[in-house]
Amino acid sequence: MKQLAVASKKQLADVVVKNGKIVNVFTHEIVQADMAIADGKIVGIGTYDGHTVIDAKGKYVCPGLIDGHVHIESSMVTPSEFARVVVPHGVTTVITDPHEIANVAGTKGIEFMLNDSNDIPLDVYVMLPSCVPATDFEHAGATLHAEQLAPFFSHPRVLGLAEVMDYPSLLQGKQHMLAKLTAATEANKLIDGHLAGLNETAVNVYRSANVHTDHECVTVDEALARVRRGMYVLIREGSVAKDLHKLLPAVNTYNARRFLFCTDDKHIDELVTEGSIDHHIRLAIQAGIEPITAIQMATLNAAECYRLYTKGAIAPGYDADFLLVDDLQSFSITHVFKKGTLVAENGCATFSVAKATSVDKTIIQSVHTKKVTKEDVQIPFTRGNCANVIKIVPNHLHTKRLITEVNVQHGVFQPSLEQDLLKLVVVERHRGLGVGVGIVNGFQLKKGAIASSIAHDSHHIIATGTNDDDIITAIEHIQRINGGLVVVENGRVLADLPLEIGGLMTAKSYEQVLERLQAIHNALTAIGAANDFNPFITLAFLALPVIPELKLTDQGLFDVSSFQFIDVEV
Amino acid sequence: MKQLAVASKKQLADVVVKNGKIVNVFTHEIVQADMAIADGKIVGIGTYDGHTVIDAKGKYVCPGLIDGHVHIESSMVTPSEFARVVVPHGVTTVITDPHEIANVAGTKGIEFMLNDSNDIPLDVYVMLPSCVPATDFEHAGATLHAEQLAPFFSHPRVLGLAEVMDYPSLLQGKQHMLAKLTAATEANKLIDGHLAGLNETAVNVYRSANVHTDHECVTVDEALARVRRGMYVLIREGSVAKDLHKLLPAVNTYNARRFLFCTDDKHIDELVTEGSIDHHIRLAIQAGIEPITAIQMATLNAAECYRLYTKGAIAPGYDADFLLVDDLQSFSITHVFKKGTLVAENGCATFSVAKATSVDKTIIQSVHTKKVTKEDVQIPFTRGNCANVIKIVPNHLHTKRLITEVNVQHGVFQPSLEQDLLKLVVVERHRGLGVGVGIVNGFQLKKGAIASSIAHDSHHIIATGTNDDDIITAIEHIQRINGGLVVVENGRVLADLPLEIGGLMTAKSYEQVLERLQAIHNALTAIGAANDFNPFITLAFLALPVIPELKLTDQGLFDVSSFQFIDVEV
Repeated sequence: MKQLAVASKKQLADVVVKNGKIVNVFTHEIVQADMAIADGKIVGIGTYDGHTVIDAKGKYVCPGLIDGHVHIESSMVTPSEFARVVVPHGVTTVITDPHEIANVAGTKGIEFMLNDSNDIPLDVYVMLPSCVPATDFEHAGATLHAEQLAPFFSHPRVLGLAEVMDYPSLLQGKQHMLAKLTAATEANKLIDGHLAGLNETAVNVYRSANVHTDHECVTVDEALARVRRGMYVLIREGSVAKDLHKLLPAVNTYNARRFLFCTDDKHIDELVTEGSIDHHIRLAIQAGIEPITAIQMATLNAAECYRLYTKGAIAPGYDADFLLVDDLQSFSITHVFKKGTLVAENGCATFSVAKATSVDKTIIQSVHTKKVTKEDVQIPFTRGNCANVIKIVPNHLHTKRLITEVNVQHGVFQPSLEQDLLKLVVVERHRGLGVGVGIVNGFQLKKGAIASSIAHDSHHIIATGTNDDDIITAIEHIQRINGGLVVVENGRVLADLPLEIGGLMTAKSYEQVLERLQAIHNALTAIGAANDFNPFITLAFLALPVIPELKLTDQGLFDVSSFQFIDVEV
Repeated sequence: MKQLAVASKKQLADVVVKNGKIVNVFTHEIVQADMAIADGKIVGIGTYDGHTVIDAKGKYVCPGLIDGHVHIESSMVTPSEFARVVVPHGVTTVITDPHEIANVAGTKGIEFMLNDSNDIPLDVYVMLPSCVPATDFEHAGATLHAEQLAPFFSHPRVLGLAEVMDYPSLLQGKQHMLAKLTAATEANKLIDGHLAGLNETAVNVYRSANVHTDHECVTVDEALARVRRGMYVLIREGSVAKDLHKLLPAVNTYNARRFLFCTDDKHIDELVTEGSIDHHIRLAIQAGIEPITAIQMATLNAAECYRLYTKGAIAPGYDADFLLVDDLQSFSITHVFKKGTLVAENGCATFSVAKATSVDKTIIQSVHTKKVTKEDVQIPFTRGNCANVIKIVPNHLHTKRLITEVNVQHGVFQPSLEQDLLKLVVVERHRGLGVGVGIVNGFQLKKGAIASSIAHDSHHIIATGTNDDDIITAIEHIQRINGGLVVVENGRVLADLPLEIGGLMTAKSYEQVLERLQAIHNALTAIGAANDFNPFITLAFLALPVIPELKLTDQGLFDVSSFQFIDVEV
């Protein structure tokens, strides 16, 4: 057996890394030694010779980083292209929940994510979406029961069941939920939690159902309540949710082993500029966490949490996924190796990904809507002009319910630039069903309209604008390009980003995506959109009926506080 | 689902422990809260009510202790009886290697250990013996290849492959060894190591073979060399090997997560008087380890090492195996609970074990020897009277090679009380094969003889004495009682302990065994045996040809230094 022969020095290693300072996450120390690699595995720490010798030139040798929970769809590129983005940032393993594509394309979506992430220099492990659809108040593109999920548990890269967020069903012991939990447990798989704002009793319930992680903590007390009860806490730092500085005070030398890092949802531009889990490490160190402790959270702790026994450390028997880092304080990564092969240098991926993944027709032609007419987008008022308005809160997922007088002419609502009251339209896009219309405050558009097929969690087409013509033009453009983002002015498309894969991702390179996003940014400025937040991200959550206060689904205006649909007219 | 209903307080718990100070091994802190139990599982930490309320009266609530590696046979009682001994000491889970009985009875021995430990208030997990026989220089009762072991991997209480000690075979990639390692790895099972005195290169080799523990470290450097390379280190404190104080200096707040405790071999009297893993905790605390850190090593760390995900902590989703402890400094255990039921109080087991386990005939009639005659035990001298003598080192497993003149009459060796030179005899007892005879120094017997069927690792009959008649009488008595210990004087049995199960264990209660051992102790004193060490324990290792310097097997005198048989006469 070659690896034993190399470990015992009877045979030369494939690769030996010399002159490195090894970050030992088991003993929390720096060890100077050679690292010998054979067939992609580390087989020796000591003094070794190899066919290829890599001179680390005194740099730190750090285990590859692990993102404990990420929705790759939020990057808007495919998993293989996503690898080109995060690998240069030292991420060699991710645990992903293909929840978004599953809401559009069901099991075909999960299969796409698995196939597209096959044989790339990033290990992509999958947790199966547990809540498709997310609620009973929206029409998703698919419904996933235990029977649909079960066959996936035998896939070598499927680790378990993803973020269980339907606490009411769990609490009531609803059969459809228990069936999924039981299937995962019986398959000896893991179950991730999603305990946003839930109290200690809820933690007890989740733990009693074998749920062993939470990535939704936003306070020290929440984090400790979970860790004390045997959960691993994933410290999230994404594009919208930024919890790291709120949670780090909960971490100390004694309990750090139960904490790890995740991005959850992070957009392509921020992944490229500030990074992924490497960003967590830098922030944690700046916040006073010992560098090696921060690295443990990003490596060994995540590997232990997800039971990836050959990952997260520089030691014999472990995968040769490692980074060369100039210095620990700034955690500046110069080289990334996967299975002993260089895959990124100075921030650039040194590999290319095959674009060959065949995408199922139903995924690239996933937009099925009725023709939207002017009549569809009218908001009638019969009694007066008092309306329930969705007031957006910049850079937050929740909204406020604003009751105000609006401009009503000929019995229908008229947008008002002065009051910043625009129309919000949600068009069901999986089966060509209904259209929901409401009034939104906060986007500050001065002209034109915007539309998107990213609308959590069902991903219908959602649009807002200053006039019906542009709103309809924007919606029709999204239909034409099979999903994406678009900015329209006076019937003209100023900029767009086609997301032809489920209306969520594109097969384009991330460089092309960044160009398109820049054009969209300019177009948004041109139509006077607010520039202190990203209108498309805000738009993406206005249809999610689980986050207060007022949301709009394809079935109408939804009051999350009372958990029921209400009329626009008060 | 009842456990969810209790966790959410919709239903009363079966049992609630109130007024306890919970030792939280995740956060390394003491937490005051109620613990709710349903169907043997902890389902809630908080405020709960239950059908039964246990008032902890301010005591500490500590997770049940885990012995990471123990040969139950060394206690000389059955696994079920062993439970009556260790459970009162807070041990609720053990990982055992039935290596001794396997050397006598092969797979039937392993089956006996599994059957006898079924449905008792001690979780007995098994690692399958990897080295039966231990060497090519002795005749064991069985040979276990990968084919014989493979069927056991599917048993729910079999965790993997036990202490791989045959480093030469591993190093040379011998097929029989690789086959066992591969079988374990492919069955997704663990592999324990046995790296006595081995260097860092050997650790690399073992780790490259997926071996992930070692319990043979005796120095800080050895321990750190293993932990740095991804091994868990089991700190051993048994009857003979006492490593705890040598290894504790290696443990610190950062690396403690990779250390756990084990007894390996501990005799019944010491288990009863000083305890098991609870003794490790007390010693560690006295040596300056923080009490909660010591408890983590005895609980959570061991559970993580052996991937027992519902053990080692007081948290929902975990088995309700816990202890009530008066105070952490003295770690005085007053109550032990298994699956929420009281199983021991103030040092006494509150359960009885069925003695019904059917023992295979081949196991209770395992002593098969040829009739031993006086001729068999003569040591001829042809050239002179210079002999290779086994010089025992009190309380150590190794011996010295002593070359000295001995008393030779009529061309054969004569024992000498003055020189303390006695005959040592090993009688092959599995197939009625040969007899090995040598000379031993150090037992100080003044009259009579002793014999035992405990002789690592093949467990032949081993005897020593002042005259041939008593030696043969002792050997014949061991044959008659199907194995055990015996002290003989002038043809009369002064005391014995029948060990009818493979010549290693008895179905008697541990109280009866203690009585017999006291009688044996008195008998040993009567025949003048040295009292600064246990002659039977010393005897038990004189036939083990892997520990230097000079040993005696059924095939003759073995020089471990040169790894070959030599003549008694120089």
